[in-house]
Amino acid sequence: MTLAAGLGADAPRLQAHLDTFATLSEPDSGPGVTRLAYTPLERRAHAVFSDHMRGLGLTVRTDTAGNTIAELPGTRPGLPALGTGSHLDSVPNAGAYDGVAGVVAAMETARLYVENSVEHAHPIRFVAFAAEEGARFGQACTGSRIVAGLTGPEDLEAKRDAGGVTLAEAMRAVGLDPRNTSAARWRSEDWAAFVELHIEQGSVLDSAGTPIGIVDLISGSTRLRLDLTGRASHTGGTPMHLRADALAAAAEIVLMTEAIASDPRHHGTRATVGRIEASPGSITTISGRTQLYVDVRDVDNDRQRLTAAEIVERAQAISSRRGVQLASHLLADASPVILPRWLRDSVATSATGLGLSYRVMPSGASHDSQMVNHIVPTGMIFVPSGNGGVSHSPDELTGAHELAVGTDVLAAGLLRLDAQLLATEAPTS
Amino acid sequence: MTLAAGLGADAPRLQAHLDTFATLSEPDSGPGVTRLAYTPLERRAHAVFSDHMRGLGLTVRTDTAGNTIAELPGTRPGLPALGTGSHLDSVPNAGAYDGVAGVVAAMETARLYVENSVEHAHPIRFVAFAAEEGARFGQACTGSRIVAGLTGPEDLEAKRDAGGVTLAEAMRAVGLDPRNTSAARWRSEDWAAFVELHIEQGSVLDSAGTPIGIVDLISGSTRLRLDLTGRASHTGGTPMHLRADALAAAAEIVLMTEAIASDPRHHGTRATVGRIEASPGSITTISGRTQLYVDVRDVDNDRQRLTAAEIVERAQAISSRRGVQLASHLLADASPVILPRWLRDSVATSATGLGLSYRVMPSGASHDSQMVNHIVPTGMIFVPSGNGGVSHSPDELTGAHELAVGTDVLAAGLLRLDAQLLATEAPTS
Repeated sequence: MTLAAGLGADAPRLQAHLDTFATLSEPDSGPGVTRLAYTPLERRAHAVFSDHMRGLGLTVRTDTAGNTIAELPGTRPGLPALGTGSHLDSVPNAGAYDGVAGVVAAMETARLYVENSVEHAHPIRFVAFAAEEGARFGQACTGSRIVAGLTGPEDLEAKRDAGGVTLAEAMRAVGLDPRNTSAARWRSEDWAAFVELHIEQGSVLDSAGTPIGIVDLISGSTRLRLDLTGRASHTGGTPMHLRADALAAAAEIVLMTEAIASDPRHHGTRATVGRIEASPGSITTISGRTQLYVDVRDVDNDRQRLTAAEIVERAQAISSRRGVQLASHLLADASPVILPRWLRDSVATSATGLGLSYRVMPSGASHDSQMVNHIVPTGMIFVPSGNGGVSHSPDELTGAHELAVGTDVLAAGLLRLDAQLLATEAPTS
Repeated sequence: MTLAAGLGADAPRLQAHLDTFATLSEPDSGPGVTRLAYTPLERRAHAVFSDHMRGLGLTVRTDTAGNTIAELPGTRPGLPALGTGSHLDSVPNAGAYDGVAGVVAAMETARLYVENSVEHAHPIRFVAFAAEEGARFGQACTGSRIVAGLTGPEDLEAKRDAGGVTLAEAMRAVGLDPRNTSAARWRSEDWAAFVELHIEQGSVLDSAGTPIGIVDLISGSTRLRLDLTGRASHTGGTPMHLRADALAAAAEIVLMTEAIASDPRHHGTRATVGRIEASPGSITTISGRTQLYVDVRDVDNDRQRLTAAEIVERAQAISSRRGVQLASHLLADASPVILPRWLRDSVATSATGLGLSYRVMPSGASHDSQMVNHIVPTGMIFVPSGNGGVSHSPDELTGAHELAVGTDVLAAGLLRLDAQLLATEAPTS
C-alpha cells in the first residue's frame, strides 16, 4: 500500500464509535451530551477506548491523572514515541464531536495499522486525555497539564466546581490519585512528536469547502470570576436612585466585555460571559450578589492579558459608580501557543500527498495540544465543523466522511513522521 | 383606660414573637429567613399564630387557601367584622419583619384587648394571610387574592415555581384544598373595615423621624418572564460578529429596563430584573438560552402597563438586532390601589390622639391590603424601616419600640373604627 492512497479510514466505523460515546451522557441533563470531567461517565468513555485498543492487541494503561494511553510497539527498540489523541469529557449540553472526534480517529488509526500490519520504527501511542474541558472546574486541559508538569496536587486541591467539589476530590471519587500526579508526567525524551485531530469549532473550513485545517497558533485563555456585592432590597420599596443592584452592574460588565472584544483594535480577541449567578434570585428582590465568569481568548499573548486587565479595570469603574463592591479572581490562565513549523509542514505534505487541499489556520479554542507542546513537538489537524461551525452545543456536527478524510491524513501523517524522524535520528547504517 | 394613652403594646413581647418566627427558616438556605409560600415552614408559622390566639381564648380557623383567622366576638351580635393582619411567608434570604410585623402586631393587639377586657361592638378578626410573596410562584398575595375572589383553581393549576411545582400542588402538599378556594372567599357584608400594619420597606419615615406612615396608594405590579433564545457555541471558536449570545441580549435588556425606570418621565416607576437564568451556564459556552424576570411597579395604573409594554417592545428590538428570539410571558399583573380616604383619616386621627406625628405616603411594595380592599374598605399603617429602608434582605430592621408604637396606633385605630362605624350603622336608640 502507498501512503498517497491513504489507508482508507472507514466512515461507518467512525460513526459507530461516535454514536457509542454520544450515549454516555448524564440522564436528565437536557439536550446533547453531558459528560463532565472526572465523573463516572467520563471513566466509562475511557473504558470504551481501552476495550477497543486491547481488542486490537495494544497495551493499555491509565495514568494517575486519568489519561488512558494505548501503545503499539515500533520495529526499532529504544526510539521515542509518536502520539495522537484527544479527550473524552464534554461541557454541559455539548455535541458529540469535540474531543471525541480525535479519540475516534486514534481508534480507527490503530485499527488500520494493526489490520494492515503497517510497520513503523517508532512506538505509536494513542491517548485519551482526561478533563480537557474547563467547564466544570474553570481550568481547561487538566489531564494534559498534568502530563506536561504544568499542574500538580496543590492546584488540584484548590480548584472547585460549582458544587464546591475540588478537582482532587473529584479525581479520588473516580479512583484516581491526585497526590501522585508526578507519576503521570511525560518525559520529553520518551516522545518524538504528537499530532491531535480535532473538529474546527468554527466555519472556516466548511465555508471554503476545504477538508483539512493545519493549526499554526492556539489561542490562550484567561478566565476570571467577578464577584459583585451590592445591596439586596425590595424591588417595589426601593427607589431607582437608592439602589446598589449587583445584577445591573453585572449586565453592564457583560456588555463592556463584549464591546472590548468587538472593538476593531481587538481583531482576534474573543471575550465572553457564559455564566452568571444572581442571588437571591427572586423576582421581587434587587440582587445583592452576582457572580460573573469571564473567558478571554486571544492568539496574542500580550493582548490577552491586557484585555483581561482592562475588563477588570473597567468592571471596577462600573461597580464603583454603582456603589457595588467588586472582587476579581483569576481562575485559569493559559498562553497562546505557536506550534512547531516543521511538524506543521510534515502534516501538510501528508495531506497534499493524499490529494487533499488544506488551510493553515489558528485555533480559537484551547486544546490538549497546547499543553503537550510544552514537552513534545505537537501538531494539530482540523476537520470541518458543519452547522455554521457551532460547538459546545447539541447542534455540533461533523460528517463521518469528513472525519474519515481527516483520519486518513492523521494515519498517513504519523507514518510520514515515523520515516522523517528516523532519517534524522538514525541515519541508515 | 383612654384611647389617647394607648393600650401600651409591650415591646419585649413583640420582639419575642419576631424572634420565634425568625427561627422558622429553611436550613442551609443562606443568610436571613427563607420561609416560602405554601411550605411546611409557612404552616408551622401559622400554627404559632393559632396557638397564641387560642391561648387568648379566640376561635381560630384556617381556610382552604391556608389563611388563618382568629376571631374575638363583639358585644353587639350581627355586626360585620373589623379586621387586621398581614402574612407569614417570606422571600428567599429575607429579613424578619416583612409581613411578620403586621401579624405580631395583631397578636399583641389581641392580647391587649383580652387582658384589658376591652369592649367593642363589632367582632374583630386577626388574620395571617398565606402566600403573600410572589417570589416563589411569580404571583403575589395569593391568600388574599383568594379571599377577595381574584384568583381560583384554574390559575392555581397554571402558576409554577422554579422547580415546576404548581401553586395547586404546593397547596395540596401542605394539606390545603386548591379546588375549593371559593369556600375561603370573604363576603363583603361580613366585613366593616380592615387595617394592615406593615414595615415601610423604604427610608422615608426613618429619615424624617416620623413614627407612623398612613398609606394612600399601593403600587401595582406587572411581572414578566422574558425567554431569550440565541445560539449556544464555543467561546473560543466563535468570532464576536457571528454570535447570537442570549446572555448579552439579556444584559442589554436589564440595563434598558433600569434606564426606562430611571428616566425623569418615570418618576414613581420602579422596574427591576432580580432573577436571571443563563443556560447552559458554562464558562466556555456562549449562552444559548437566558430567562429574565422583570418586575414593574407603579402607582399610576396606565404608566405601569405602558412601561411593561415599552420594556417588551424594546427587548424585542434588542433581541432582533442580535439575532436572538424573544418570547415574553405575563406572570402576574396587579393594578395600583387608592385606599379609602375616610379610613385613612380615621387611622390618622388615632395616631394624633396618641400624640404621634404621621405622614401620608404611597407604598412601592404590594400588600395583601391591595387585594382585601376589593371587598372591604382597607387602610395601612407603616412603621419605620431602619438600615436605609432595606427590605427583602437579611439586613431588614425595625426596632421593637417602633413596632410597639405602630401597634398602639393599630389597637387604638380599630377601637376608633368600632365606635365610628357603630355611630353610622346603628344610631344610638
